[in-house]
Amino acid sequence: MVVTKKISLETKGHCDIMDITHQVEQQVAETNVSNGTVTLFVAGSTAGISTIEFESGLLSDFEGLWERNVPRDITYAHDRRWGDGNGYSHCRASLLGASLVIPLSDKRLALGTWQQIVLVDFDNRPRLRQIIVQVMGE
Amino acid sequence: MVVTKKISLETKGHCDIMDITHQVEQQVAETNVSNGTVTLFVAGSTAGISTIEFESGLLSDFEGLWERNVPRDITYAHDRRWGDGNGYSHCRASLLGASLVIPLSDKRLALGTWQQIVLVDFDNRPRLRQIIVQVMGE
Amino acid sequence: MVVTKKISLETKGHCDIMDITHQVEQQVAETNVSNGTVTLFVAGSTAGISTIEFESGLLSDFEGLWERNVPRDITYAHDRRWGDGNGYSHCRASLLGASLVIPLSDKRLALGTWQQIVLVDFDNRPRLRQIIVQVMGE
Repeated sequence: MVVTKKISLETKGHCDIMDITHQVEQQVAETNVSNGTVTLFVAGSTAGISTIEFESGLLSDFEGLWERNVPRDITYAHDRRWGDGNGYSHCRASLLGASLVIPLSDKRLALGTWQQIVLVDFDNRPRLRQIIVQVMGE
Repeated sequence: MVVTKKISLETKGHCDIMDITHQVEQQVAETNVSNGTVTLFVAGSTAGISTIEFESGLLSDFEGLWERNVPRDITYAHDRRWGDGNGYSHCRASLLGASLVIPLSDKRLALGTWQQIVLVDFDNRPRLRQIIVQVMGE
Repeated sequence: MVVTKKISLETKGHCDIMDITHQVEQQVAETNVSNGTVTLFVAGSTAGISTIEFESGLLSDFEGLWERNVPRDITYAHDRRWGDGNGYSHCRASLLGASLVIPLSDKRLALGTWQQIVLVDFDNRPRLRQIIVQVMGE
């Protein structure tokens, strides 16, 4: 059985890290699938999906990681060409990845207690995001 | 239904970023699956798979990210031991990841308009790559 | 068909990189699935899963990558708040990712010859880890 659902989300951009665990769980609960996989995918090239312990200290630490390793304030060829100033957002998103797959077992996602599913919006402006939630199994 | 297909690709190595979106779409179109997941996986430990907006500015920016964060010109224990000079390629590939899963819905991949699927070949020489395209669903 | 299995693993923490290829292969062999996907997922927010050529040089190089890019010895807001000293572990794990999906074809995982599946435990102490191995297919 394959059920494809969608989460729509307004983000603030600028490394906005949004906990979508509850929304994913709700979408899964509405299906008749008990065992299988939940595939999450964000359409767009300036956002990514991962898991993190969702507490304010780590949100700031994770943003710091991106500022140090893929800085906003260096020159990007993308920006010279297109002028939209979000070359760093694209690079960060490609590194983090657009998809995440979580096993579902007896209607429960295999997450740890302090492990939340997050959308990270790296773009340099607020965005309306579509996250595909595809539940496949039996 | 499970259909396993393959894309063969000659790369130039040296952070060669190749757009495989069209080839993936073609392989998917040849199956009878309309809804499900498309799992991409590259066999080998010096290449990875991700998505990016495929335009020349970003290709150069993404390569810059790798040069800054996992430089070619520092000392790698792998190279001291095996002498093949591609320790940096292995490290980059392990960080980017070898797999990507994209939901398929009504025969369409859930990609954004400016979001292409890419193979990134980090090796220090041209390679012939095999990418598995596995389509599962109904 | 969906079969959900588990690997339990004692790690040493501190960027302990453990080859779980053989255990994954064994779990897969015990199922009746010949073609499909093997989804690996680590519950917890201080460990990740990837592939690497498992040789001692690269294990040390990969650890070096993490020390340079997400250093242990800078200040983390997580640590100021919770005092457990593993803010760097969380950040590394979120970047590497908690899941990996490998196609299975005629009972064989699509891995390259020098490509092993690894759990990377970034925590700052030994841990008992649970890795979900979910096999789905026919």
